[in-house]
Amino acid sequence: MFFGEKFLETKLYPYERIDDLQLNGLRLIQNTESFCFGVDAVLLADFADIKENARVIDLGTGTGIIPILLAGKTSAKEIIGIEIQKEMAAMAKRSVALNSLEERVIIHEADIKECVALLGKSEFDVVVSNPPYMNSGGGIVNPKSTKAVSRHEILCTLEDVIVAAAGLLKPAGQLAMVHRPDRIVDILCLMRQYKLEPKYLRFIHPYPGKKPNLILVKGIKNAKAQLKMLPPLYVFNNDGKYSEEIDKIYCRN
Amino acid sequence: MFFGEKFLETKLYPYERIDDLQLNGLRLIQNTESFCFGVDAVLLADFADIKENARVIDLGTGTGIIPILLAGKTSAKEIIGIEIQKEMAAMAKRSVALNSLEERVIIHEADIKECVALLGKSEFDVVVSNPPYMNSGGGIVNPKSTKAVSRHEILCTLEDVIVAAAGLLKPAGQLAMVHRPDRIVDILCLMRQYKLEPKYLRFIHPYPGKKPNLILVKGIKNAKAQLKMLPPLYVFNNDGKYSEEIDKIYCRN
Repeated sequence: MFFGEKFLETKLYPYERIDDLQLNGLRLIQNTESFCFGVDAVLLADFADIKENARVIDLGTGTGIIPILLAGKTSAKEIIGIEIQKEMAAMAKRSVALNSLEERVIIHEADIKECVALLGKSEFDVVVSNPPYMNSGGGIVNPKSTKAVSRHEILCTLEDVIVAAAGLLKPAGQLAMVHRPDRIVDILCLMRQYKLEPKYLRFIHPYPGKKPNLILVKGIKNAKAQLKMLPPLYVFNNDGKYSEEIDKIYCRN
Repeated sequence: MFFGEKFLETKLYPYERIDDLQLNGLRLIQNTESFCFGVDAVLLADFADIKENARVIDLGTGTGIIPILLAGKTSAKEIIGIEIQKEMAAMAKRSVALNSLEERVIIHEADIKECVALLGKSEFDVVVSNPPYMNSGGGIVNPKSTKAVSRHEILCTLEDVIVAAAGLLKPAGQLAMVHRPDRIVDILCLMRQYKLEPKYLRFIHPYPGKKPNLILVKGIKNAKAQLKMLPPLYVFNNDGKYSEEIDKIYCRN
């Protein structure tokens, strides 16, 4: 595949690769030995409601996949990605440069717990987050591994994400999050506790009839209690092909 | 259909009918002008885990459908149904008598808020409830109509049900509830608040691909936080026939 001149200038480490995001020619640098983006990031970028000129922030941006997708899909004015892991943040910055998105996408190497102090209170229209899914309590994890930090609540808990979102959002601002269904009680209770009332809920199932393995949730700051359940999203049809909706989200048709 | 001698003795009002529950010959008196039981009651009776000799209580029992189904399906020692509406409670008592279940099933005309005072604290293994689904706040309802009381939170709120369950259950006792998915935030947050930790969650969809219209939730008193999502249950297949699981729950095959 030919990526043009910018590709030749982009410094890649031996363990890195450049992936074509199949969206407006966008590309992403990923560490093949570390955490690579998945369908969850793509679904979240599709799920968030981002209006023209919105200010958006992605908490725990990792490779920068979500800000880069949002830059391609929306007319947000500014999209900030926060990433605590130094190498990840540096790689995300290189992906931003690779796509010449420096004017709209800014990656900060920072702790989510310091976001409000760093960026100001109630300054954002939308917060998105694909946080670590696993409770830090369970299992043996290597706290120095970038893969472990991306997957486990080692450096940031679900509550840290929700507290930060509550601080960063303007009144009526939106938190859109992707997570695991088995954390739904924590997610809904913490969102309500911090006045980000859950308004939309969608379950993602690998196939029809199978239990869901992802959840998309949207909360609105200071909104009244009234949830709308959305229809389920199936990744594959029973025949093993991607569902029509997934093809549409991936811009395959 | 021939219901035997007991049928002839059962006093029926002109607006009432006797339905065959298709389970061990069980029958139920229903008021055709009022609230009749639906798939939700049948699903809940199937969902609750009831061990031999368990003491069970149904909060807001209405026609008594759930205690009568549980008497037929399980070897519970005692099943109590609580109903605040005088006519409903009287009709449920007649259904219990019609099925000769007086030794195991007891209907109390009482307010859910007085259950613990009436029946004692931490005396039950399982609480089941199919409470009114609608917030009393919304819409115009006639507070004297039995249909309205069964559907709207006029005489009992979701919080009343959960508070009563928390008081009635033994440690590690189970609350099994059916409700609407759009109340999921209230349900999960109130259950956690009153130490009935949600452990199992199941969504019921009318058809595959359609949004769920019922939710089954099971909480355990004083349990630690760890939810298990169950596979979705489809009432109908895409071909319009009842799903295999529904046929099985209704003992049709």
